[in-house]
Amino acid sequence: MTAPTRARLSPDERRSQLLDLGVRLLATRSLDELSIDLLAEEAGISRGLLYHYFGNKHAFHEAVVRRAADDLIAQTAPPAGGDALGRLLASVTAYVDYVLANYEGYVSLIKGAAGGNETLRQIYDEARSALSERIFTEQNLLGNAQGELVEDTPRNRLLVRGWSAMTEELVVAWGRDPAGVSRQEVLDIIAGSLPALVGVASPAPA
Amino acid sequence: MTAPTRARLSPDERRSQLLDLGVRLLATRSLDELSIDLLAEEAGISRGLLYHYFGNKHAFHEAVVRRAADDLIAQTAPPAGGDALGRLLASVTAYVDYVLANYEGYVSLIKGAAGGNETLRQIYDEARSALSERIFTEQNLLGNAQGELVEDTPRNRLLVRGWSAMTEELVVAWGRDPAGVSRQEVLDIIAGSLPALVGVASPAPA
Repeated sequence: MTAPTRARLSPDERRSQLLDLGVRLLATRSLDELSIDLLAEEAGISRGLLYHYFGNKHAFHEAVVRRAADDLIAQTAPPAGGDALGRLLASVTAYVDYVLANYEGYVSLIKGAAGGNETLRQIYDEARSALSERIFTEQNLLGNAQGELVEDTPRNRLLVRGWSAMTEELVVAWGRDPAGVSRQEVLDIIAGSLPALVGVASPAPA
Repeated sequence: MTAPTRARLSPDERRSQLLDLGVRLLATRSLDELSIDLLAEEAGISRGLLYHYFGNKHAFHEAVVRRAADDLIAQTAPPAGGDALGRLLASVTAYVDYVLANYEGYVSLIKGAAGGNETLRQIYDEARSALSERIFTEQNLLGNAQGELVEDTPRNRLLVRGWSAMTEELVVAWGRDPAGVSRQEVLDIIAGSLPALVGVASPAPA
């Protein structure tokens, strides 16, 4: 049951390398289009070996999506220094670039997570939580020495949740059809809207 | 092939009455739980008669969801008079109340539409468009005599799209777990956030 290895990679390194390839393939494909066959062909190895590494197609998809979510979280880490809005804009920029570079796979993840695939939903929720949590944790996006923009209250937790949904919708819709709106406008809208939302004054009752 | 009718309703009236019952049953159930059997039992008529009216389960679900979407659009119509923010708040209040009163069915519609059911997605998109279009059409929500708050530009179209996604996320998340946030706070956030978003100034580059 030992699988042949290529080069001098350990099984873990080899598996990791195959996951990276899976993530790259997913960038321009839906999950449905990402098959073990395709990965085998692109990696130049046998289907049998891939089953050895991943067990089955479902487990393979789960592993690829987890890797993609980890990549997203890593790539959108805000810079350590700078003012709060600048750090937020940097993180938002990385998020938008990530979604655009991995559009098909990202959209298929949203679809799978929303449509009732429990594994995808869990990975999706974990990634969303990780991104949102940055707004509130001690080493947070908006709580540096320049002052906290978002106080950790139930109201603001709800707001950040709504802002995340809006951000995703904006990027996915704009990625499909920019309709003359520039990338910079999208970035400014997303980054600028969080403090704007937090600062929303209660309108007078009708 | 003529079906027996009850009372003195025409077939169209009878079908409409059955759709209303379907919408009421859907309020506290997912679409998966809304069966022809259940409708037959609640309506006190035969399955055969229901198949006569609706053809099959898929067509029945489609008709119920279309009716529910029409109800949503009708119930959230803004009042004819008043200032722009007051009209927006009234419409948003009706939307929140509708979602809360029809929570299970509404969430299952989102799930079905997002998950790849083409019929549900189409009805969902049409309803969303109808709600959003109000912001921009001549007799619109924010463009009455008191002055237009939302100019019809590609940027603002994208913003309203994002605002709609945020609104839905806020209501669905809050409906599941209010976490101490009051209904009035939710309403104020949603109504107040649209003008706040439209007015978002471009932040300085990082």
